[in-house]
Amino acid sequence: MALIRSAFQDELDHISQSLVDLAEMVSISMAKATSSILTSDLKLAEEVITSDEKVDTLQHDLDTRIIDTIARQQPVASDLRALITALRMSSDLERMGDLAHHIAKVCRMRHPESAVPAELTEIIKSMGAADVKITEKIAVVIATRNTEMALEVDKDDDVIDELHRVLITKLVEPSAGYSIDKAIDLTLLGRYYERYADHAVSVAHRVYFLVTGEYPA
Amino acid sequence: MALIRSAFQDELDHISQSLVDLAEMVSISMAKATSSILTSDLKLAEEVITSDEKVDTLQHDLDTRIIDTIARQQPVASDLRALITALRMSSDLERMGDLAHHIAKVCRMRHPESAVPAELTEIIKSMGAADVKITEKIAVVIATRNTEMALEVDKDDDVIDELHRVLITKLVEPSAGYSIDKAIDLTLLGRYYERYADHAVSVAHRVYFLVTGEYPA
Repeated sequence: MALIRSAFQDELDHISQSLVDLAEMVSISMAKATSSILTSDLKLAEEVITSDEKVDTLQHDLDTRIIDTIARQQPVASDLRALITALRMSSDLERMGDLAHHIAKVCRMRHPESAVPAELTEIIKSMGAADVKITEKIAVVIATRNTEMALEVDKDDDVIDELHRVLITKLVEPSAGYSIDKAIDLTLLGRYYERYADHAVSVAHRVYFLVTGEYPA
Repeated sequence: MALIRSAFQDELDHISQSLVDLAEMVSISMAKATSSILTSDLKLAEEVITSDEKVDTLQHDLDTRIIDTIARQQPVASDLRALITALRMSSDLERMGDLAHHIAKVCRMRHPESAVPAELTEIIKSMGAADVKITEKIAVVIATRNTEMALEVDKDDDVIDELHRVLITKLVEPSAGYSIDKAIDLTLLGRYYERYADHAVSVAHRVYFLVTGEYPA
């Protein structure tokens, strides 16, 4: 019995490590996507677009492994809950990869022009950096199950929501005079950065729930 | 054994019926959200916003039931896959409910003004009607596991993508002269309708996969 439990623990550790790997891949994609859109770097955008397939493959393999583990080990309630949660986190991370991919596609669509006007580069840069930081944090939260750090993610998300609010305020300033296609691009970009962070929060809350049995207040 | 199998089959049927119920609730929310935004009907918007909690509760209860079924019945691989797929479909449906909720919130934010200018009401109406139609179709697909109908959902989604493309084209027409906040509202509305349909496609593909073991080409 001790041996079986240990093999199962190894399996859980392996799944947890795969989630961390997935978070790190997605973090790199987000960093590159933001860099691509700020510098109109088509090569970098294409890299993000291509690497999204790798994220999808890693997620697919991970999901298969999780489901096989449930089928083979027939885990008790708490272990089953951990595996189901792993499935949900992998889905959040995959979606975060998609959103980085969407940002890179805005770069590609507008290239060689830039989707981001000079006076808005700082804010987009800050949103991208905040999204990368939040992803690095959830990678640690997944690996360590640190609940304090999981709660910090809510505050990181507040920062991103505030940046998003500022972006929209700048867009609608009457004196700014943006064209409609710029406004559309920047509305979508803002939405992608914001949704990305929402999924990170979702991952942090899931870990918090696994450890404490409750969702954060 | 026959008895156990039958109890398990009853459980699967019950879960499937709950997914159909969830789809029907979401479909009503989408119909009301679209109507609210077209007529600036604050009362209707508030109804959608309030009913989103009911969708979330139904989804939460359904997920608990699915996980309990896995824990108690320790199903074989194919039954386990059906249950995991049910979890994913419930997540897609819950997200569709969120998107209807977002549309209602745009109505509320702009009330008593209308977020949709008169000349764009037809296109938003068509997107809303197409989203309702696609939800009604996936409810039937979930209930009947009809794979032909599951494939039709891709075509319904193409219609919505095309409406979305037309909406963006109308927004950027130089002669249209939309204000930036109108452009932002309509960009987000377009995105909500489009993402909603993407989740419906995802549900249809999951059913298709369950029945055939393959994803649609």
